[in-house]
Amino acid sequence: MTISMNPDEIVAEILNGNRAILGKAITMIESTHPKHYKLAGEILDRIMPLVGKAKRIGVTGIPGAGKSTLLEALGMHLINKGLKVAIIAIDPSSSISGGSILADKIRMPNLLRENNAFIRPVCSGGHLGGISRKTRELSFLLDAAGFDIVIIETVGVGQSEIEVADLVDFFILVQIAGAGDEFQVIKKGVTEIADAIIINKDDGNNKIITQIARNTLKNALHILKPKYKEWQAQVLTCSAKEKTGIENIWNVIENFYAIMEKNGKLLSIRKGQYIHWMKRQIEENVINMIYTTEDINTLFNKAKANIESNNLSPRNAVETVSQYIEKKLTSEVLK
Amino acid sequence: MTISMNPDEIVAEILNGNRAILGKAITMIESTHPKHYKLAGEILDRIMPLVGKAKRIGVTGIPGAGKSTLLEALGMHLINKGLKVAIIAIDPSSSISGGSILADKIRMPNLLRENNAFIRPVCSGGHLGGISRKTRELSFLLDAAGFDIVIIETVGVGQSEIEVADLVDFFILVQIAGAGDEFQVIKKGVTEIADAIIINKDDGNNKIITQIARNTLKNALHILKPKYKEWQAQVLTCSAKEKTGIENIWNVIENFYAIMEKNGKLLSIRKGQYIHWMKRQIEENVINMIYTTEDINTLFNKAKANIESNNLSPRNAVETVSQYIEKKLTSEVLK
Repeated sequence: MTISMNPDEIVAEILNGNRAILGKAITMIESTHPKHYKLAGEILDRIMPLVGKAKRIGVTGIPGAGKSTLLEALGMHLINKGLKVAIIAIDPSSSISGGSILADKIRMPNLLRENNAFIRPVCSGGHLGGISRKTRELSFLLDAAGFDIVIIETVGVGQSEIEVADLVDFFILVQIAGAGDEFQVIKKGVTEIADAIIINKDDGNNKIITQIARNTLKNALHILKPKYKEWQAQVLTCSAKEKTGIENIWNVIENFYAIMEKNGKLLSIRKGQYIHWMKRQIEENVINMIYTTEDINTLFNKAKANIESNNLSPRNAVETVSQYIEKKLTSEVLK
Repeated sequence: MTISMNPDEIVAEILNGNRAILGKAITMIESTHPKHYKLAGEILDRIMPLVGKAKRIGVTGIPGAGKSTLLEALGMHLINKGLKVAIIAIDPSSSISGGSILADKIRMPNLLRENNAFIRPVCSGGHLGGISRKTRELSFLLDAAGFDIVIIETVGVGQSEIEVADLVDFFILVQIAGAGDEFQVIKKGVTEIADAIIINKDDGNNKIITQIARNTLKNALHILKPKYKEWQAQVLTCSAKEKTGIENIWNVIENFYAIMEKNGKLLSIRKGQYIHWMKRQIEENVINMIYTTEDINTLFNKAKANIESNNLSPRNAVETVSQYIEKKLTSEVLK
C-alpha cells in the first residue's frame, strides 16, 4: 500500500471523518513494513493529545454465546441515540489462516450499513503481543477519529481476553445459561477481570435456566474479591435476538463511567494501562534487537546448528546465548 | 517446599517409579523460586539423554466438546493395553484465579485410580511463555519417568493451542457436531495445526449431524494445505460416553508414528521444536534481564514515573528505554 499524504494531512483527514483515509491509517498500523511502522508512529504521535474521550469496552465469550448478535443490537441502540460506534473484532484463531473472522462482519448486517458504525477485524498473525499493540493503537485512532464508543471483541477462552482486559475501561463477559460442563471453569477465570457478565439468549425456553444461572453467578461474584472497590461486577440478562435488556446494559455501562470518572479512578486505570503497554512494547523491541544484532544473531545461529547436529542440548544452547547477551546488557556503554 | 535429596538421587527415584518424588520434581519445575529453578535445571540435564521414547499427543477443543470424558476413555483403553499414560492439563483460564481446572481431575475418576496413569493440571500464572516452558519440561520428565504416552490437554480457542501444537508430535482437535455458528471460525484456525479431528458425541440423536459434520470437515481438509506431505489429517468420530471409536483413534495415532518414524520425519519435527523452545527461552531470559539490570531498570522506572505525572507519552517512553538498551546490545563487550 502506498499513501501520498504526509502525516499531518492524514491526521487532518481522519479528524474530518474521512473513512477511506482512516482505513488506510489502520492498515499502516497493522503493517509490519518498517516504513509503514514509522508513518503509523508519526500519525499516533499527532493524535495522542486527542485520545481519551471514547469509552473503551471489551467483550468476550465462548463461541456460540451470541456476541455478534449482541454487538449488533447494542451497536444499533447506540447509533439510534446519535452515538458513533467502532468495533474491533480480534480473531485469535486466525493466527494461522489469517482472516477467518471476516464472516463476523456479515453477522452485523445492520451496523455495516450505518455511517456512524465502523467494524474492523484484526488478525493476530500468530503473535499475541502483536494483537495488543495493534488493537491498542487502533482504539486510540478510532477514539481520536471521534467514535464515542470503541468496542473490542474477542473470542474466549484464553490469553487474548486477559490482553484485551488491559486495553479497555469496561470488560464484559457474554455467557449463555447451561453452556456445558466447563461453565464452571470459564467462570472462575474470567469473573475476576469482568466488570459485567451478560447472560444472553434470555428468551423462549431459556428463561428459567437463565434466571438460575443469573442467581448462581450473582452469588459467586459476591464471594469473589471485586476488581475495584468502587464497582461490584453486575450480572445482566438479555436477548440479543429479541432485543430485550439492551438498554439496561448501556445504563449499567454509563453508571460505571459516572462512578469511575467522579473519583479520578478512570484516569488512574488508563495510566496503569499505558505503563503496561510501555513494558510490553519495550519487551517486544528488545526481542527484535536480539535477532537483528549481528554478533548475537551469529551466536544464535551457531547454537541452532549445534542442536540440529545433536552437538548441544537445548538447555545448554539457551545458557550460552543468554550469558552472552547478559554480558552485553550489564557492561557499561562505550561513550 | 524443601527436598533433601541431591539431583542424582531425585533422578534415580524418578526412574525407579517413585511417584511422590516425581510429583516433587514437577513442583520444582513449576516453581518460580530461583533455587528450585536451578535444581529443576539439574534434574532436566540428567534426564535429557533418556527423553524421546514417549509419544507426545496434544488435545484441544472448545469447552463442552467432552475432552475430559474422551481422555478418560482413551486413557483407560491404553492402560488396559499395558501402557503408562500421563496427562498434563493446561488451564489457560486459571491464570487469574490459579487453579480452576482441578475440577477436571475429578472428571477422570477411573484414570485417577490407576497406578499407570498420572494426571497433572498446570496453571499458566498469566504468562503464556511460562506455560510452554513448564509444560515442555514436564513432558520431558514424564517421558524419562517411563510414561509411554504423554497427553497435553488444553482448552481452545486461542493462543494456548498454538503453543501446545509446538510441544507435541500429534495434535488432536476434539469437536462436536453442530457446535454453533462459530464452528466455521474455529475450524479454519485450527485445522492447519491438527493431525486429526475427532468429532465426539457420535451417539443417540447426534449420529446424523455427526456424519454431516464429518463429511464437511473431510472435504475442507482436502482443500487445505496439509501440515506434512507425509500425513493427511484424519477426521474421526467417537462417543466417549459410549466408548465407541476409541480403538480406532489409537490405531490412527500408531499409524502416524509408524509413518513418521520410518522416514526420520519425527526426529526432524522434534529438533524443530527444540529450536523453537530455545528461541522462546532466550527471549524470556532477556526480558527478565531488562528488569534485573540496575541501570536499565532505573531508566525504566523513571519513564514510568514520567508517564504517571503526564510528562512523557508512552510511545516516547518506549523509544527512550529501547534506544538505551539497543546501545548496550550493539556495543562491543569489554573484555
